[in-house]
Amino acid sequence: MPTILGQNQYGKAENRVVKITRDGDTHHIKDLNVSVALSGDLDEVHYSGSNAHVLPTDTTKNTVFAFAKAHGIESPEQFGIALARHFVDSAEPISTARIRVEEYAWERIAASLGEDGTGHSFVRTGQETRTAQISYDGDSLQVLSGLKGLTVLNSTDSEFWGYLKDQYTTLKEDYDRILATDVTAVWRHTWTGDAQAAAPDWRQSYEGTKAHMLRAFAETYSLSLQQTLYQMGSRVLENRPELEEIRFSMPNKHHFRVDLTPFGIKNDAVDGAVYIAADRPYGLIEATVLRDGAEALIPVDTTNL
Amino acid sequence: MPTILGQNQYGKAENRVVKITRDGDTHHIKDLNVSVALSGDLDEVHYSGSNAHVLPTDTTKNTVFAFAKAHGIESPEQFGIALARHFVDSAEPISTARIRVEEYAWERIAASLGEDGTGHSFVRTGQETRTAQISYDGDSLQVLSGLKGLTVLNSTDSEFWGYLKDQYTTLKEDYDRILATDVTAVWRHTWTGDAQAAAPDWRQSYEGTKAHMLRAFAETYSLSLQQTLYQMGSRVLENRPELEEIRFSMPNKHHFRVDLTPFGIKNDAVDGAVYIAADRPYGLIEATVLRDGAEALIPVDTTNL
Amino acid sequence: MPTILGQNQYGKAENRVVKITRDGDTHHIKDLNVSVALSGDLDEVHYSGSNAHVLPTDTTKNTVFAFAKAHGIESPEQFGIALARHFVDSAEPISTARIRVEEYAWERIAASLGEDGTGHSFVRTGQETRTAQISYDGDSLQVLSGLKGLTVLNSTDSEFWGYLKDQYTTLKEDYDRILATDVTAVWRHTWTGDAQAAAPDWRQSYEGTKAHMLRAFAETYSLSLQQTLYQMGSRVLENRPELEEIRFSMPNKHHFRVDLTPFGIKNDAVDGAVYIAADRPYGLIEATVLRDGAEALIPVDTTNL
Amino acid sequence: MPTILGQNQYGKAENRVVKITRDGDTHHIKDLNVSVALSGDLDEVHYSGSNAHVLPTDTTKNTVFAFAKAHGIESPEQFGIALARHFVDSAEPISTARIRVEEYAWERIAASLGEDGTGHSFVRTGQETRTAQISYDGDSLQVLSGLKGLTVLNSTDSEFWGYLKDQYTTLKEDYDRILATDVTAVWRHTWTGDAQAAAPDWRQSYEGTKAHMLRAFAETYSLSLQQTLYQMGSRVLENRPELEEIRFSMPNKHHFRVDLTPFGIKNDAVDGAVYIAADRPYGLIEATVLRDGAEALIPVDTTNL
Repeated sequence: MPTILGQNQYGKAENRVVKITRDGDTHHIKDLNVSVALSGDLDEVHYSGSNAHVLPTDTTKNTVFAFAKAHGIESPEQFGIALARHFVDSAEPISTARIRVEEYAWERIAASLGEDGTGHSFVRTGQETRTAQISYDGDSLQVLSGLKGLTVLNSTDSEFWGYLKDQYTTLKEDYDRILATDVTAVWRHTWTGDAQAAAPDWRQSYEGTKAHMLRAFAETYSLSLQQTLYQMGSRVLENRPELEEIRFSMPNKHHFRVDLTPFGIKNDAVDGAVYIAADRPYGLIEATVLRDGAEALIPVDTTNL
Repeated sequence: MPTILGQNQYGKAENRVVKITRDGDTHHIKDLNVSVALSGDLDEVHYSGSNAHVLPTDTTKNTVFAFAKAHGIESPEQFGIALARHFVDSAEPISTARIRVEEYAWERIAASLGEDGTGHSFVRTGQETRTAQISYDGDSLQVLSGLKGLTVLNSTDSEFWGYLKDQYTTLKEDYDRILATDVTAVWRHTWTGDAQAAAPDWRQSYEGTKAHMLRAFAETYSLSLQQTLYQMGSRVLENRPELEEIRFSMPNKHHFRVDLTPFGIKNDAVDGAVYIAADRPYGLIEATVLRDGAEALIPVDTTNL
Repeated sequence: MPTILGQNQYGKAENRVVKITRDGDTHHIKDLNVSVALSGDLDEVHYSGSNAHVLPTDTTKNTVFAFAKAHGIESPEQFGIALARHFVDSAEPISTARIRVEEYAWERIAASLGEDGTGHSFVRTGQETRTAQISYDGDSLQVLSGLKGLTVLNSTDSEFWGYLKDQYTTLKEDYDRILATDVTAVWRHTWTGDAQAAAPDWRQSYEGTKAHMLRAFAETYSLSLQQTLYQMGSRVLENRPELEEIRFSMPNKHHFRVDLTPFGIKNDAVDGAVYIAADRPYGLIEATVLRDGAEALIPVDTTNL
Repeated sequence: MPTILGQNQYGKAENRVVKITRDGDTHHIKDLNVSVALSGDLDEVHYSGSNAHVLPTDTTKNTVFAFAKAHGIESPEQFGIALARHFVDSAEPISTARIRVEEYAWERIAASLGEDGTGHSFVRTGQETRTAQISYDGDSLQVLSGLKGLTVLNSTDSEFWGYLKDQYTTLKEDYDRILATDVTAVWRHTWTGDAQAAAPDWRQSYEGTKAHMLRAFAETYSLSLQQTLYQMGSRVLENRPELEEIRFSMPNKHHFRVDLTPFGIKNDAVDGAVYIAADRPYGLIEATVLRDGAEALIPVDTTNL
């Protein structure tokens, strides 16, 4: 045979599962988008079309919904771990499973709270999307938590100068610019499923990581977006011992100060300026930050551009 | 001439203007998307291509940015009014202007606050987009305020039964369902620019309207999405005397309870159930609510589907 | 009652119906997105939540699919007419129906054709989306056909000069620019359902209208996008007697010639130039063209910005 | 230092460059979206914010436009190669460059052709987007060509049965289903920049690869989407000696046959049926096909879900 099959995986993507939990008159909501990818002894389905080793993607979908009811959804990580283990441990031909989860956050509508604090009315917060990727090979787990779509902006304390110049360089140095980005971040937990070791408190780990990231973004006097990124990453690792690697993909969302001199108007940053928020092109900064000695395991390609 | 020109308008759409205001070390941010549409004595540019009456769209763009600096941005409404008046009052051939504004909200990153409460670091809230449409004909103003993308959900207190049935009806009645929607709403102010009358406090009006809308959504025990919509509209008009008309476009974002009986699992709403959040098709409910005696002036077509 | 109900409508939006017709080994495909909006005696569902007059949106969805099988899909217009008439004529409380249809085009994969020209393999063409809107009030029909997403570009024969200037004008005149736009167009048929008069051949009418539009775009030496628009509209009306009104919404997709002089490179249009295709802001030109004496009935708001 | 920097890269993403070439009255158009990512001796910009080794992303943008004019755009691959070599060879600290290109296709508007076949009017084809990724490390090149958004459908000759069943399996076997997918494919050329060896004819290679892919899709009687994918990959490799590896990401775009029996309507595939085109969830099939003995070098993660 002149050609052979390489890496392959299949599953059902984007299962939109919503779970309501009722605690008397107080309801809780979990809103996830779950994608399943399975690998294993699957050569024949590619070569001959025999589905004998193929658990249908429709079944993986059913399993997502059944597990949501039977086991509940405590966090994207816990839910993904349960699913990953199930597929590998129960389907003979399946040797590895990768579960990707997006979680959309909701907050309570204040008006809906009863006098006793109960409530069943929610408004979607719309800020960042929480993410998780759980991989399981029958032996150990890899848990990547993360977020995307966290848009942040510093209106000052950002400079850019002293850079390399060649014959195509026309950019002017800037000593007071807006720094804005949409943070996509993925961080890896040291815990790999060892039953002897306690799993992290996933919610607390997420909240803490996000808080440190925001704080580092706000507190860093920035000479480059790379510097800010590194500060965010190292701050997280210094404060979250359960993590050992984090990767960022951060566009430099350019806000150009508008030249209003043709209209006799000064538009200096120091006086509070007007900017045009540009769409494309944009700078794109991507980097991994690691605890010293840790192995780099987070995939490098987290964006498509 | 066998064909003639009908209604027409032109302008620069989607000017992304960001204005930073510095109040010592405390910065404020306004982030808008401004679209300009002008009409007037413009037959010739269509018939012969003569641009003698055409203020270039590039000029309307420049004006947006210059006005942001020269006059500041207090609210989408105030900013749109200033622009609309300027184009009609200063460009001879232009007789009407319509300014549409979207505003994206930011909140402060708590960590960025100095000991004295100062700060210049922001995170985009990502919830609803605030909107405004200002029309001016040289005489009076029409101000429509609004919002879009406000996603809300009640996990109970929603029923649907007693409906009309024909030969294509298969839907089962439901006595405890999820009610979820993305609210798009547009409301009209009674104030039309009369210098004798005070203009509304735009920010306060917006916040109050949104709050009453959310409260009515949360408090209505719903027998139909139409009923909920009407409650939201009438609640707003009863509490906001500066308004006399409001229109909603509200998709019924279906959350179908999953049938888990093939797996021996009960999935009743009363116990806290698992739902699949569906994409398409979706119900789409649109209606206007008016103060009795008011004229219906908000355009009916606020969506494209 | 201090507030009353105004215009309202409801229905199921975005029913994605695909119909395969088999003609021996040759298959044909129709791929539509159908949205239903019904109005009528519907006050009570808003006021009290009584659904006694409400045909469920789920039923309208079922009807779309049942009609696709029972009556076939010859064209978006014919299919929409059948549905609109059905809802108004069969459901007592419903007095008007508006059906909106998008059609996605497919072409045959050449390789799939048998020796006898048969085939059942298709590739989506991906060019413009064909649209139709049918309104029926129990008496007469209004049929609006149209398209959206038809992206066209002239690499020369476009100028822009001689425009109005004010203190915010900085634009330089251009005697050789790229003219590019995404055409959204809606045209109205004179036929209103009169059984005595033959309905148009919808497919032929669509193809002819699109062809005249493209030809006028290509052949017009343009002094303004408005002039090009008007030429497109009048050309269509002059050649398609079944139409009497057409409306366009056409963004001016700016292609800015890049200044390469800092690098010692000339970049003149006449030599073949390099342009940056800008996203936002963009000019937006909207206008109706009418047969002289015709009434303007196409809604003015066909975009949201 | 407790944390260190891992893999990192930066550059300007999504430069939208359009190049017109004039050949007398006949114009040609190239329409690209170019993203630059550079790596090298960049630790300091992360650690201290020193930009001494940073060629600004603004400069990489300028270079893209200057190269388009100075060297022309023959193909995404040739253009990407020229850019990748330039950055690594000219900027001392930069050791590797990755250029990603999307190309949007245009065809001539027939009406625009002069009697001598000339023309300067174009309509965007809107079918697939052509892609290329060029990586250069100062020594050798890796050229990945590809496409995305090629939507194809077989209306018969697809079955799915004989699959693995567990307690969550409810899917019924299907002996005549629609098979539809959006093809994303990336293929790797054996040529790595060796000056002794001729580079492929990039255009011809692309057209041939796409044609074989479509033909294999159309001709394969499919027992699984995996089988179809493998046939597409092996067909390409068998016919294009310049390639040695190809990876696909193909969603199973479900078209569910609608149950019309409640309305007394049969809806069998054999008679030509009506389907609902579903959005989410969808199957997602990803696999690499390799020439026997070739090394697998195409990244596995080509999608984010």
